[in-house]
Amino acid sequence: MPGNSFGTLFKLTTFGESHGKAIGGVIDGCPAGIQLDFETIQRDLQRRRPGQSNITTQRKEPDEVTFISGIFEGRTTGMPIAFLIENTNQRSRDYAHIKDVYRPSHADYTYDEKYGFRDYRGGGRSSARETACRVVAGAVAKQFLNSIHFTAFVSAVGNLQLTRDVETLDFSQIEQNKVRCPDPDLAEEMEAYIKAVRKEGDTVGGVITCYIDGVPAGLGEPVYDKLHAQLGKAMLSINAVKGFEYGSGFAGTRMKGSQHNDIFTESGKTETNFSGGIQGGISNGMPIYFRVAFKPVATLMQRQKTITKNHEKVDMQGKGRHDPCVVPRAVPIVEAMAALVLADFMLLNRAAKK
Amino acid sequence: MPGNSFGTLFKLTTFGESHGKAIGGVIDGCPAGIQLDFETIQRDLQRRRPGQSNITTQRKEPDEVTFISGIFEGRTTGMPIAFLIENTNQRSRDYAHIKDVYRPSHADYTYDEKYGFRDYRGGGRSSARETACRVVAGAVAKQFLNSIHFTAFVSAVGNLQLTRDVETLDFSQIEQNKVRCPDPDLAEEMEAYIKAVRKEGDTVGGVITCYIDGVPAGLGEPVYDKLHAQLGKAMLSINAVKGFEYGSGFAGTRMKGSQHNDIFTESGKTETNFSGGIQGGISNGMPIYFRVAFKPVATLMQRQKTITKNHEKVDMQGKGRHDPCVVPRAVPIVEAMAALVLADFMLLNRAAKK
Amino acid sequence: MPGNSFGTLFKLTTFGESHGKAIGGVIDGCPAGIQLDFETIQRDLQRRRPGQSNITTQRKEPDEVTFISGIFEGRTTGMPIAFLIENTNQRSRDYAHIKDVYRPSHADYTYDEKYGFRDYRGGGRSSARETACRVVAGAVAKQFLNSIHFTAFVSAVGNLQLTRDVETLDFSQIEQNKVRCPDPDLAEEMEAYIKAVRKEGDTVGGVITCYIDGVPAGLGEPVYDKLHAQLGKAMLSINAVKGFEYGSGFAGTRMKGSQHNDIFTESGKTETNFSGGIQGGISNGMPIYFRVAFKPVATLMQRQKTITKNHEKVDMQGKGRHDPCVVPRAVPIVEAMAALVLADFMLLNRAAKK
Amino acid sequence: MPGNSFGTLFKLTTFGESHGKAIGGVIDGCPAGIQLDFETIQRDLQRRRPGQSNITTQRKEPDEVTFISGIFEGRTTGMPIAFLIENTNQRSRDYAHIKDVYRPSHADYTYDEKYGFRDYRGGGRSSARETACRVVAGAVAKQFLNSIHFTAFVSAVGNLQLTRDVETLDFSQIEQNKVRCPDPDLAEEMEAYIKAVRKEGDTVGGVITCYIDGVPAGLGEPVYDKLHAQLGKAMLSINAVKGFEYGSGFAGTRMKGSQHNDIFTESGKTETNFSGGIQGGISNGMPIYFRVAFKPVATLMQRQKTITKNHEKVDMQGKGRHDPCVVPRAVPIVEAMAALVLADFMLLNRAAKK
Repeated sequence: MPGNSFGTLFKLTTFGESHGKAIGGVIDGCPAGIQLDFETIQRDLQRRRPGQSNITTQRKEPDEVTFISGIFEGRTTGMPIAFLIENTNQRSRDYAHIKDVYRPSHADYTYDEKYGFRDYRGGGRSSARETACRVVAGAVAKQFLNSIHFTAFVSAVGNLQLTRDVETLDFSQIEQNKVRCPDPDLAEEMEAYIKAVRKEGDTVGGVITCYIDGVPAGLGEPVYDKLHAQLGKAMLSINAVKGFEYGSGFAGTRMKGSQHNDIFTESGKTETNFSGGIQGGISNGMPIYFRVAFKPVATLMQRQKTITKNHEKVDMQGKGRHDPCVVPRAVPIVEAMAALVLADFMLLNRAAKK
Repeated sequence: MPGNSFGTLFKLTTFGESHGKAIGGVIDGCPAGIQLDFETIQRDLQRRRPGQSNITTQRKEPDEVTFISGIFEGRTTGMPIAFLIENTNQRSRDYAHIKDVYRPSHADYTYDEKYGFRDYRGGGRSSARETACRVVAGAVAKQFLNSIHFTAFVSAVGNLQLTRDVETLDFSQIEQNKVRCPDPDLAEEMEAYIKAVRKEGDTVGGVITCYIDGVPAGLGEPVYDKLHAQLGKAMLSINAVKGFEYGSGFAGTRMKGSQHNDIFTESGKTETNFSGGIQGGISNGMPIYFRVAFKPVATLMQRQKTITKNHEKVDMQGKGRHDPCVVPRAVPIVEAMAALVLADFMLLNRAAKK
Repeated sequence: MPGNSFGTLFKLTTFGESHGKAIGGVIDGCPAGIQLDFETIQRDLQRRRPGQSNITTQRKEPDEVTFISGIFEGRTTGMPIAFLIENTNQRSRDYAHIKDVYRPSHADYTYDEKYGFRDYRGGGRSSARETACRVVAGAVAKQFLNSIHFTAFVSAVGNLQLTRDVETLDFSQIEQNKVRCPDPDLAEEMEAYIKAVRKEGDTVGGVITCYIDGVPAGLGEPVYDKLHAQLGKAMLSINAVKGFEYGSGFAGTRMKGSQHNDIFTESGKTETNFSGGIQGGISNGMPIYFRVAFKPVATLMQRQKTITKNHEKVDMQGKGRHDPCVVPRAVPIVEAMAALVLADFMLLNRAAKK
Repeated sequence: MPGNSFGTLFKLTTFGESHGKAIGGVIDGCPAGIQLDFETIQRDLQRRRPGQSNITTQRKEPDEVTFISGIFEGRTTGMPIAFLIENTNQRSRDYAHIKDVYRPSHADYTYDEKYGFRDYRGGGRSSARETACRVVAGAVAKQFLNSIHFTAFVSAVGNLQLTRDVETLDFSQIEQNKVRCPDPDLAEEMEAYIKAVRKEGDTVGGVITCYIDGVPAGLGEPVYDKLHAQLGKAMLSINAVKGFEYGSGFAGTRMKGSQHNDIFTESGKTETNFSGGIQGGISNGMPIYFRVAFKPVATLMQRQKTITKNHEKVDMQGKGRHDPCVVPRAVPIVEAMAALVLADFMLLNRAAKK
């Protein structure tokens, strides 16, 4: 467990630093015989791409994925699927100023404490650039799970909260606005707010909700590898995530059991779904939904106090091109991680019965 | 990954059903040479024990742990430490009524869907009785991590929320009341509320906060096995947990970066700690804290509608002896899982440098 | 990987020392719905039991297995199957003389070097007594794999070698003699030889051959987890094993490709089977066979020179009750480990195709 | 465990097919701070390279490794080290004839059975070309283990056997001849024999011995992950390997305990070393040595009978450029796998004591 792999049977290992030659990954355990649609994969990557709108970072990286192995005549062979995304638009000089400085609330200090030194250019391995590889692997996983639908969207930016019930939302609106919020009016407010925050050189956090439909009952392993525990780990492993709740979540703690219990109908479905599609750690066939909390981006375009490697006080100011709010670009990452979790449990579940 | 193990180097595997002969576990990878204090282990088990007060289930199980292996002359030998807790107070007849019935918001339906049948007595393997094994293993982990202090406490029961800053709390109060809330006045309110809920045959949820002091910098692995991601998985694997947040958590999503960033002091500490002691997935030496959401217990002492195995509608009423609110007894479980996570990362971190 | 688990999906973890309260194990990942025949399990244990004949150790241990969990109404539930075998006939005083002495070619010295100290009684965890747990788990695995037949037998004791082709052997003879050699005449010679060696206070090595019939094509994973690589690891993990070869083995190194290649027939079978039922690390449907080399037992009933913990020279003499040759009792262990390997690959293979 | 990874803490994952764009690997868990000597890495790769002499395949592949990540200013950073080796000299037309044909004693049939179809070009993933990646990773591992010396050499080609005691050999001779046998006279005989075999369009097997000096005591994990069990798995995972023995090996089965026991000297060393440097699965500080059996290459330049995908009989003849004997080129592969095993156990051993 050196930290760069995710999954047991459907397993992703990623590599690469923000300013190295390339980032990439290896999917080991993808079942044989899946006809891959490469455009769909690239499309998910476009949704995560920097520079896609005027509320994201203005870095322009094409983020084109090249597959190296594991595919023959368009189909997966069961062999490891390796892929690369070249780093084409690094400006390492933007980072010379942080070589000996620990940026507040970044990984600079902790990497130095753990490893003794670090590749400081663009945050090196701790950069969110790594998540592009998750998107590629998740897009492959989605094609394996083609009867399951993954829909993530922005449900809060700062204090602007989407409070409508998920069942009333029009998911076709999500990709119609830059924020990726299914409520067009709220999306407009969020966009304006993000722009205002950016103008201050500041950043703001937000929440992404993910809704998964078409999950068969039986996914998840009992006790330590519960479906929601692994989903939680997957989401918390995304850069800037501070919290995860599924089904009724933290709000459920304020309910009584008589309100919270999901009563079965004769079809085996439930009247309500406070359980979020998971009972005892195993999917019950109802939609799965969960919320993921993202903190405000730590890189500010404002002057901040910090310390150097030698613990001397210093002033610093963010340079480079950064996101004022990560949630619009994190939507496909949340979906990708959810797909990786379900693909793995789908395969694991094949071992449940004799 | 069949679901009953936790950890990579410091690894717990548990077994046993609620109404079988015994439950137990095997800790593999506990380093050699730790002088174990068995009374401390048993004391943690007492904190989780049913029947400990009039706001918990009235089942009376002594929950005495017997160690089978891995200890010689009072010290760990590096060999697997197996232990057993006998099941002495099962009343299987209490469960005959659920043999063919799916209790709402329990694991009955999903286990049947996944495995084809189940040991229905007392919930079988899905019973929270399994968590006693976590407490034993966590108590061993704590003795390995003897310079780290784990303090969990109840910070909400239903709408009764502890809002005081964690630094202002008197932790010595926690074990002085039945609820395990460090604010004595609020604890009294909570206790009264739980009693009232129980009188209605109902149940209520709550929140546990965990505060960990003395963690060295450098624990956690980058990218997928971030310290908070593994803590999140650990907590979400506990029965009835619906959410996890660390540091600023969901509240942090409403902050701006300029408020949220933790500014370093010359000592390498930070002025604030919205990061919750973890940056880039790696501990930074500041206290770690997080909150865990528990849903209301699903077993009610009220009549509920549900379905049978054959999907016929039926009325049922909870029997047996159940908790109206799990959080008071879940406090040592939260600590135990946190200790297991840190013990594992402590060992993994020994491989970070050449 | 702290060393006491075997397998990925069908996973055994064992625990316990030779002279502790009990030894035991946990099988995690055994599929649900297998009707277990407990007599068959106990019968395999009897084949490994000490004191079963006058050519084995005279220790008398009943070695009765008690199942703790994971079985309901006679069937596996998919939950971890824990079991215990009590230690009833330890004579710890037999080992007081080795407390501070390193027995030649035992694990005493290396355990002390690795862990700082050890449970010296009966060899502690390094005792071959642990293999009783493998036999139990292997017997469960065999019942999962009920169309595959595992037949191990003794093919050499010292220089007495069974040279007949495996296809000409009468397997029904194996359990008819104390040595477990399918050639009755050779078995008699082997028995006489073992008795002679024991009279000298000496010991002797031997070879076990294992023949597995009914294996479907497709088991084994490419590259690092080849079927024969995992079989080799399984066998080499058994106490006293020094070598493993499958199919043509070391003899195959002296052949030419034109002799060694197995030519296909129209049925997809092969005319010869130098491949030993495995090609490219994956079973091809032909019988699998391999040979396992066991060194002579290190505990002699003769005076030997050795050193103490403080590296002082000392004379020692084996006490207690030991086997003059391990291979007769190791036959069921070899079968058990083979069954564990195949059970795991059978489940893993379910993930090969979409 | 989908089969393309090796190791727990020092972990290699490889990818790529013989005739794809590239092959490559990811080393995750290499400790931070190792100053890498890239020439040494490339040199090991040259020793495995096709076309290096007139007794190997005449394919000419430069096999130059490019590192993608995990290295900063020449030192390992603790992040995953990804590398690529381009495929430059594929002649896919050489393989058109095997598209629908199962070559005898190859992986064609079993891959089709397992995965439903396969990349047939050059054997696809089952090609020994994958082992180039092992050599790269092993060369990195050797630099981590810089006080341990790995020396593999050819000890048999067909019936030509090196019978001299390993301690009498002059290792400096190994790289002085094309066969990599430390006895120059025997090397000459072997070379002549391989040429003769090739002239017949035939192939021949052989044995590689590996000798490892400078291993500290304490490496290896008890019971299932014994040092020699993992070494055995590592070697058996190499293409064409049929057997593994360490220390006295199969010959040890014919010895008596009184001959075989290694008597300690006062220094903690042993007078003899039949144990092969490993006792109870853990290194004892003496040299480790083992032998690896390679079958004759299955691709012949002779006409052979075989079957098609549809199980029709057909005649085929090997085309392309193949090795008449693999052992000369397999020497660095054996060393590499040994280094990967020891690097992993070196890190795991850091967790042995409190």
